[in-house]
Amino acid sequence: MTTASQRDPSVDEAAIRALIESIDRGLHRKDLAAITAPYAKDALIFDLAPPLSHRIDAGELGAWLDSWEGPVERESRDLDITVGGDLAFCTGFFRVSATPRAGGHAAWWMRATLCLQRDGGDWRIVHEHTSVPFRMDGSFQAAVDLEP
Amino acid sequence: MTTASQRDPSVDEAAIRALIESIDRGLHRKDLAAITAPYAKDALIFDLAPPLSHRIDAGELGAWLDSWEGPVERESRDLDITVGGDLAFCTGFFRVSATPRAGGHAAWWMRATLCLQRDGGDWRIVHEHTSVPFRMDGSFQAAVDLEP
Repeated sequence: MTTASQRDPSVDEAAIRALIESIDRGLHRKDLAAITAPYAKDALIFDLAPPLSHRIDAGELGAWLDSWEGPVERESRDLDITVGGDLAFCTGFFRVSATPRAGGHAAWWMRATLCLQRDGGDWRIVHEHTSVPFRMDGSFQAAVDLEP
Repeated sequence: MTTASQRDPSVDEAAIRALIESIDRGLHRKDLAAITAPYAKDALIFDLAPPLSHRIDAGELGAWLDSWEGPVERESRDLDITVGGDLAFCTGFFRVSATPRAGGHAAWWMRATLCLQRDGGDWRIVHEHTSVPFRMDGSFQAAVDLEP
């Protein structure tokens, strides 16, 4: 048995980075099973869209994927992963880029916070918070044009 | 010495809850030192306002406090705290309510994710992500009227 103190955090960081990249590839392929596999079944999601919170929902995610023509591209920047024992959190930025079925093209950067728990041998995302800030000039417009 | 396995997570949860309440009281009193004390010096903040991210900044926070007439009230709901070893994360909702110097009244619910690390005997917030979602109806309006 490997105890917490014997574990090498860089191994866990690499595993979590690989997990995030597996979601990126799943989004590109629109492979719902690949996208949802790294999440705990009842993962708490604070999403770009209302409501304030929901539990992960494959049906809703599938409908979202279907709203895009072709692949959904996601890249990460400045991922910072902190591991301690059986918990981890990750902060950074995601750029999503895709073509709406309605036409045009959409691309935006968002901040992302992921909270993970070790479940047996695997890391699982138990919470995901993605957002953009909004303008404080009275317009209350979501700032989807910011870059990290 | 108390090892990680001997620690009672409920003690840590209570400490983190007390830390959050100390910020609430600090906001009420507009006591900048009390508000910032529980944060790590270089805490990474994903805030309601642009930019996408910044480090905690007492000067900016002081200017924000000054933009309100009288106390800034903050209450929490559904705080869920997960502790493992020297890491913790907390999810939930904050309601902020205050009177702008410019007149009127402002109140909104937001989602909050806090990531904490044990620093010696104390917990410190190393990352805070607060946000509201935005409307996906083409208006890109921040949804400041949602309730948890």
